[in-house]
Amino acid sequence: MAGRTNNPGQTVSQRLLSVLDSFDVAHPALTLTEVARRSGLSVSTARRLIGELRAWGGLERLEDGRYRIGIRLWTIGALAPRQRDLREAALPYMHDLFQATQENIQLTVLDGTEALCIEKISSTRAVPTLTHVGGRLPLHATGVGKAILAFSGRDLLATVAAAGLPRMTPNTITQPGRLAAALKEVRRTGAAYSYEEMTLGAVSVAAPVLRLDGRVRAALGIVAHSRAAVDRLAPAVRTAALGIARATN
Amino acid sequence: MAGRTNNPGQTVSQRLLSVLDSFDVAHPALTLTEVARRSGLSVSTARRLIGELRAWGGLERLEDGRYRIGIRLWTIGALAPRQRDLREAALPYMHDLFQATQENIQLTVLDGTEALCIEKISSTRAVPTLTHVGGRLPLHATGVGKAILAFSGRDLLATVAAAGLPRMTPNTITQPGRLAAALKEVRRTGAAYSYEEMTLGAVSVAAPVLRLDGRVRAALGIVAHSRAAVDRLAPAVRTAALGIARATN
Repeated sequence: MAGRTNNPGQTVSQRLLSVLDSFDVAHPALTLTEVARRSGLSVSTARRLIGELRAWGGLERLEDGRYRIGIRLWTIGALAPRQRDLREAALPYMHDLFQATQENIQLTVLDGTEALCIEKISSTRAVPTLTHVGGRLPLHATGVGKAILAFSGRDLLATVAAAGLPRMTPNTITQPGRLAAALKEVRRTGAAYSYEEMTLGAVSVAAPVLRLDGRVRAALGIVAHSRAAVDRLAPAVRTAALGIARATN
Repeated sequence: MAGRTNNPGQTVSQRLLSVLDSFDVAHPALTLTEVARRSGLSVSTARRLIGELRAWGGLERLEDGRYRIGIRLWTIGALAPRQRDLREAALPYMHDLFQATQENIQLTVLDGTEALCIEKISSTRAVPTLTHVGGRLPLHATGVGKAILAFSGRDLLATVAAAGLPRMTPNTITQPGRLAAALKEVRRTGAAYSYEEMTLGAVSVAAPVLRLDGRVRAALGIVAHSRAAVDRLAPAVRTAALGIARATN
């Protein structure tokens, strides 16, 4: 068995943080070996750092021996003010939308070149989606992503296009020119659609939550079964997004 | 100016985590000097560790030079499964309660010997409370705390009583015997009250969210202006807590 050795250029702090980075929405519980592999650390270093994180409360050990993020990190993460204030302002509007539609409601912000889901309301009756709070969505293939992209600077579109527009379904817009044209339409109408461009069977409509200076703070979206449903829901989504903007500006 | 020196018994990891620990609900934004003081580190060590946390995205720098928790920690904290699953199951019930009452609705879990608020719905019309998501409440003085305490093992009550029952208001129960009698009544009725025992002017009623084996998973509470209001609201709180239990068991 080949023992991996640590990258000698990393500080201890960087190694500790890389242990945390090995967890994500797709990998919420990991074994020691998985943590070592995903963080690029030796198993012995990973074991020691996991021990320190457990003693602190940042990681918890499951009965099957895997580790997951613990309550201490949740508590500290909840202090991030951008999320907290926006969420508290948005929740009443999101619940009004949910009560009227019983569909998935998502609130997202831009993080890097992706849309980060910071709140979600769903029910067992809604279209199944893979989005969790803390999960990320591509900007070019989702309603919320296009709502953010349309009201961000041109630089962001250039960066996203330069990185390539991955095809998620046969309907995904993969040509930068077509995407730019779609975003122009989003700016004109104030609503961004994804017609099975992210997931087959799921159609979404989203609206931007704008700051007073016109920059985008967040995007509010709804995912439903059919094109007819989202066309019907677009005015409600836009109204709720305006309400959230008013509550946060 | 006396320069503080670090505790030589601490590992680098412990120092890094103590930087994070210096932030809490009452101190969401701190200067470098405050971080050093609260974490017990020298200013130069605190500066270096803050730099590593900023580079990673765990801390952000405000325009006034203070630091706050950043989006990266929020994203990782959101992976804590205990909070995520419970919150997602509870939110629809919490919003039903909110819509019917327009009062503060709180969902809390036991963390150590305190009640940790993991979700809150409020409005500008509700009684002002100091509770934020991620904030902590004493068990003996709050409705949610007593609901947790009443349905936890005797060990917890013994621990809480041994640590002393701080007087928050003139109405706080500070005698262990009186608290035990109050908890017996909570077990009999399924509802826990705080009559201005935490904050003057704020009255609360809470109900436990129980697991199938009878252990307590969480407590759902509502804070209102008057004793008459919470007496009227108790059945609604109990019903919502039962709904959350059914959705999570």
